[in-house]
Amino acid sequence: MPASPDPTRFVLLHTSHPGNVGAAARAMRVMGFTDLVLVAPRAADIAAHPDALAMASGAGSILERARVVATLAEALAGVSHACATAMTPRDFGPPVFAPREHLPGLAASAHRVAFVFGSERFGMSNDDVYRCHACVSIPTDPAYGSLNLAQAVQVIAYEWRQALGGFAVQARMPQRSLASVDQVQATLAHWERALVAIGFLDPTAPKKLMPRLNQLLNRAALSDEEINILRGIARSIEHSRQ
Amino acid sequence: MPASPDPTRFVLLHTSHPGNVGAAARAMRVMGFTDLVLVAPRAADIAAHPDALAMASGAGSILERARVVATLAEALAGVSHACATAMTPRDFGPPVFAPREHLPGLAASAHRVAFVFGSERFGMSNDDVYRCHACVSIPTDPAYGSLNLAQAVQVIAYEWRQALGGFAVQARMPQRSLASVDQVQATLAHWERALVAIGFLDPTAPKKLMPRLNQLLNRAALSDEEINILRGIARSIEHSRQ
Repeated sequence: MPASPDPTRFVLLHTSHPGNVGAAARAMRVMGFTDLVLVAPRAADIAAHPDALAMASGAGSILERARVVATLAEALAGVSHACATAMTPRDFGPPVFAPREHLPGLAASAHRVAFVFGSERFGMSNDDVYRCHACVSIPTDPAYGSLNLAQAVQVIAYEWRQALGGFAVQARMPQRSLASVDQVQATLAHWERALVAIGFLDPTAPKKLMPRLNQLLNRAALSDEEINILRGIARSIEHSRQ
Repeated sequence: MPASPDPTRFVLLHTSHPGNVGAAARAMRVMGFTDLVLVAPRAADIAAHPDALAMASGAGSILERARVVATLAEALAGVSHACATAMTPRDFGPPVFAPREHLPGLAASAHRVAFVFGSERFGMSNDDVYRCHACVSIPTDPAYGSLNLAQAVQVIAYEWRQALGGFAVQARMPQRSLASVDQVQATLAHWERALVAIGFLDPTAPKKLMPRLNQLLNRAALSDEEINILRGIARSIEHSRQ
């Protein structure tokens, strides 16, 4: 994996479970981020644990390059804007935003950004939150708001990548060639003849059958190929009556 | 947990790892969804496995209520719009969208929606994708696009909840009382006197010091309380010279 030009840093505080570190690395990797810093994990070699490697899947290189430091202050060296992903302290602290309130503006700034994630059991301490410039809070069900650590990393990495301009979604199949309205109208006329031929449609009392089929085909956004299929069916209906 | 009025269904196909089922349940729960259907999981009692319960954390009730069925067709009973979360087949298939292209419009419709997730190892079969109305693809790094199953559930559940109107982000602290421009100007004037008093600012050659401090304080968006702190410091500086 080439060194990423993206300077965004992900900081995990006092992480307990190696599997979460690996899953967080994978979550970063799929969104194109590579700079992982671990602050005082429960075990210093947590990133080399088999559970971490297993959960990282193809993101092992992020674990290899992850740095372990003793304090959040060290982890934020070189960063100009740190986002806590935590509940704010009860007394005072940085302003709280939903990701979509804060990240688009931040992406347009010149800041060197870090996202800071608390430990699985205790979240972030007030002192750590005070070092941050904003709290980015993932909106969750008020009745149960506890995201797994790696899933919080996934949502934030996804939102930040979206704010930075995102990756493209690639369709793997060729574009469908969409039928024009005149093709659809000719198909409807063909079906009308066929339906009259088999006695389903009474031309003296057509009601709204053809307009309904027209609406149905409009919603279906037919392709050229599907026009051919529908006309083939209409032809076959007509022939079955001969 | 009360029965949720939200009818959105999450369908996991042929899931292998109990931990993923539990983590998916938790991912749904934090976004307020509860209807989980498992299609032919590797073990029929996968939702009762200790790893599933551990990863579900507070979402155990979703596991208890999860239904196990044999086919995707059964899983989609009652659903009117199924979103595959998969690469599309190479030949043809439903249209592919990024979540933000498809979900807002879908949320505004009357559809009863399901999201369908393939197995960890094999994703979704073509036949299963053909049953769906759209492919919702999470935009990822083209060099490594493989999300963990539960993390894909988390991103989709998050995006769908956002499309449905979202949950509020609650600040836990009282709103800061923001200082008015006249308070800031009075504070700057006070600091100017203090800085002149200690010889830091030469009133005959003030350069741009005060406008710079003005800009700094504007960016800082001071509160009333912080105004009091800054004026207290200025007062203390003046007194130190007496």
